[in-house]
Amino acid sequence: MTITLINTFVVPAAVEAEFVATWRSTIDHFRTAPGFIETRLHRNTGLQDTTYGYVNVARWESVAAYRAVFEDFVPAGQRIPGVVAHPGLFEVVAEVTAPAADPS
Amino acid sequence: MTITLINTFVVPAAVEAEFVATWRSTIDHFRTAPGFIETRLHRNTGLQDTTYGYVNVARWESVAAYRAVFEDFVPAGQRIPGVVAHPGLFEVVAEVTAPAADPS
Repeated sequence: MTITLINTFVVPAAVEAEFVATWRSTIDHFRTAPGFIETRLHRNTGLQDTTYGYVNVARWESVAAYRAVFEDFVPAGQRIPGVVAHPGLFEVVAEVTAPAADPS
Repeated sequence: MTITLINTFVVPAAVEAEFVATWRSTIDHFRTAPGFIETRLHRNTGLQDTTYGYVNVARWESVAAYRAVFEDFVPAGQRIPGVVAHPGLFEVVAEVTAPAADPS
């Protein structure tokens, strides 16, 4: 079963640049790992709720594939003082896309 | 600019079925709206951090398209007693996909 890691981050402004830089370097640890599908790092625009400055959404082929990479590895971004992470593993229960454009 | 709504929900067990049912009905309010691209509702598997029982990730063509729908409409799921929502608007700052499979 495909699994989705959704990791919500509180990132103090003083360490924001460091956080993004380390996140990008962390990618190299798993982008070629078996079972990795894709990941997106999102930055809060500040236009609505600002509880979380960054959210990472990553899809993996299975829980086992995810765990094989992260069992002994805490991503560097989570080790930065002041950064608080909530890394949950989720399954998709509903998916809706926009209807196809009307060709008329 | 494409915008991503990431809404993290605390959902008490007693209202979980009601939450999912109302979320599905809410979809009908915007799935045909101009600028809506796609949405996924995720349920926590309980295998890692369990702070948020559900997370909705929705993509829209623009902030304006999103606001046109939600300016005067609070989704029903957020009106259920006990449900706490953090609806933030995000932009993608990094996107990485797995390398193409080795054809050899």
